[in-house]
Amino acid sequence: MKFLFQPSALVLRSALSKLVKRLDPSLIQDDVARLPFDRGLINRVLKMRAAKVNKKLKYVIVIGIGGSNLGAKAIYDAMYGAFDGLMEERFPKMLFLDTTDPEFLFAFSRFFKREIKHADQVLINVISKSGTTTESVANAEWVMGWMKRRFKNAADRFVITTDVGSKLWNLAEAREMARLSIPKMVGGRYSVFTAAGLFPLAAVGLDVKELCRGAREMPQRDAAVSASIIFHHLKHDRTIYDHFFFHPELETLGKWVRQLIAESLGKNGKGMTPTVTIGSTDLHSVAQLLYGGPRDKFSTFVWAEKSTHDVKLPRSLFFRGLVEGLPSQSAQKIMQAILHGAKRACRNEELPFTETILPDLSLRSLGGFLQFKMIETMFLGKLLKVNAFDQPAVELYKKETRRILKQG
Amino acid sequence: MKFLFQPSALVLRSALSKLVKRLDPSLIQDDVARLPFDRGLINRVLKMRAAKVNKKLKYVIVIGIGGSNLGAKAIYDAMYGAFDGLMEERFPKMLFLDTTDPEFLFAFSRFFKREIKHADQVLINVISKSGTTTESVANAEWVMGWMKRRFKNAADRFVITTDVGSKLWNLAEAREMARLSIPKMVGGRYSVFTAAGLFPLAAVGLDVKELCRGAREMPQRDAAVSASIIFHHLKHDRTIYDHFFFHPELETLGKWVRQLIAESLGKNGKGMTPTVTIGSTDLHSVAQLLYGGPRDKFSTFVWAEKSTHDVKLPRSLFFRGLVEGLPSQSAQKIMQAILHGAKRACRNEELPFTETILPDLSLRSLGGFLQFKMIETMFLGKLLKVNAFDQPAVELYKKETRRILKQG
Repeated sequence: MKFLFQPSALVLRSALSKLVKRLDPSLIQDDVARLPFDRGLINRVLKMRAAKVNKKLKYVIVIGIGGSNLGAKAIYDAMYGAFDGLMEERFPKMLFLDTTDPEFLFAFSRFFKREIKHADQVLINVISKSGTTTESVANAEWVMGWMKRRFKNAADRFVITTDVGSKLWNLAEAREMARLSIPKMVGGRYSVFTAAGLFPLAAVGLDVKELCRGAREMPQRDAAVSASIIFHHLKHDRTIYDHFFFHPELETLGKWVRQLIAESLGKNGKGMTPTVTIGSTDLHSVAQLLYGGPRDKFSTFVWAEKSTHDVKLPRSLFFRGLVEGLPSQSAQKIMQAILHGAKRACRNEELPFTETILPDLSLRSLGGFLQFKMIETMFLGKLLKVNAFDQPAVELYKKETRRILKQG
Repeated sequence: MKFLFQPSALVLRSALSKLVKRLDPSLIQDDVARLPFDRGLINRVLKMRAAKVNKKLKYVIVIGIGGSNLGAKAIYDAMYGAFDGLMEERFPKMLFLDTTDPEFLFAFSRFFKREIKHADQVLINVISKSGTTTESVANAEWVMGWMKRRFKNAADRFVITTDVGSKLWNLAEAREMARLSIPKMVGGRYSVFTAAGLFPLAAVGLDVKELCRGAREMPQRDAAVSASIIFHHLKHDRTIYDHFFFHPELETLGKWVRQLIAESLGKNGKGMTPTVTIGSTDLHSVAQLLYGGPRDKFSTFVWAEKSTHDVKLPRSLFFRGLVEGLPSQSAQKIMQAILHGAKRACRNEELPFTETILPDLSLRSLGGFLQFKMIETMFLGKLLKVNAFDQPAVELYKKETRRILKQG
């Protein structure tokens, strides 16, 4: 595998190497970085898969939010894309209950009633590190309610993923429900290589060993270089960090990155605002701002060198003469032309960017990307002198919400 | 209808009224603002609907990108939500070809082959103001290729929406294809109330008259007040404008707003960066940054007072004691508790925000919101002294892309 990180030319090498020197690999939190090396963990996940997945299984329902579902959703969407709902022939599918929006829950309950005729057709994975996430606990109650009205032993179709010793863990244990643990020291946004991320992916048949293998192969030095470049730009008032993914199926991966950066680094008045742009689509909505607006952004273009499939245009076109150079082009070639056009325009305008080039969109490459971003973020925490592992300000709204809920 | 715009308490009334005075309704571009009043336009759309929509119709395929599809997609997703793919019983559905991503096109072509057995099951609306958008022309060729290989008179199932006199218009005219026009003076991001937005929505059976009615009822003064508040914050270095939608089905509406703001105001080094946050889900990813990060943001919370459906938790819970106040709660109440909790935390931290409160998520309310945002943006153009109707920097990457495509 060649995972290519391409620094931009706009940062002085001398400034950069000074920064990189500050980033010793020993600064990385091993509890997180060593997860993909933990064979015991992977085996526990696969064992649970063997116990709960059967041939009738049609839907794996993930009840989780933020760090508890974004990792699995990022990889699932990357592999099956936006068309999953229309791909009737492929099962099991993964569905995500990450909101208590009433319209969504209403639609979901109708769908559930229509589709689930047998308990074995469904597997529900409730994921909450603290075990007290309001939305996830509410959603677990709803789904448990539906399941109990329909099936005996409804609780057998649940797997509970939480911290050992959390109230949820203890409740699940008392009821003899299947449980998987999240290591104490690993926060939600870093938990994709724990059971939180790996179990649902394994349950729908994705090869989580490949995902972990990609993570293990990731060169840490590249992440240090990337972190140093980002830090340099931040010091020069480029406070918006844009990930420009040139594959629409990576939009959820963008949301995973957004959480990782926002929650790890946005504290003590410091941090940067992560944005996610999807090429080529979003060039038609934000290109004007990127090229013509305030110079407060830096970007990394994320793209894969090879696509799994391709589609070719006919030699003879129906709508002739509208766009030059189209006959016999392939979809991949067109996307590449737009990507390289966007990059050249950045160079011409002296807008800073880097490139994160994956060999392809395989699980192995995606695993490398996840690990790259987590290590980059930990290094950034060091450079910014913030604790990349806590999230104290989250309590500010949760406290108010609890007060309102208690008042009924 | 009561469309409520709630200014935040953090802006001085005197400063505000000075700004609002600068914003005379005569500053609004009438070509855009008067569109919802144009009965002739609505009638042409409904006439085309009568000509092309039949009982067999299962899929309306919109080929368009940016301003050409985001309006229709925003409203469609708001009405049918993220679950549309799983709602097998409801037809016709709308599908969006807004990328030339090879994986997406491959999946789409398989879906197309499996699902479309008769030409009348599909209606293809190609939308491109200029008629020369690379991705849209390529996608139109692919779909035309598939259609021609399968059906006689494939071209009869196409409707072409473009500027009168564009190359695409002339080609479609020469081939006697159905055409709808976009008024010359109306740019893509302002075109939701032209045939570009209205025809696909009407084709899937949505009441576009209600959408336009809501837009007509919109009080322009509120948009002037909102623009003045935004301008005030921008002058105080709050350069990131966040739309915090408390309904996941409004995520695409957020993308529509993002384009509107980015493309209209991001020029001459000016403008602001629009971000979109979805409540309550994204509180679990960006709340730490919002409450603890740099003070460079201002927000508007967008929410509806009434939901169409609701779901209630049982009185007796299975997972007891994890979250206080949950028994017998409804989904809407939980969402409201989180929303108001998030707002209170903003107030406590003196983070500036406004509220855009819709009575409900009906087409009428959504139409009002669309019009509100377009008028707000035009007023902001005046305050920022930029032309809110051009997008010169977009050429910077398009020029480079054309060069690459021509070289093959």
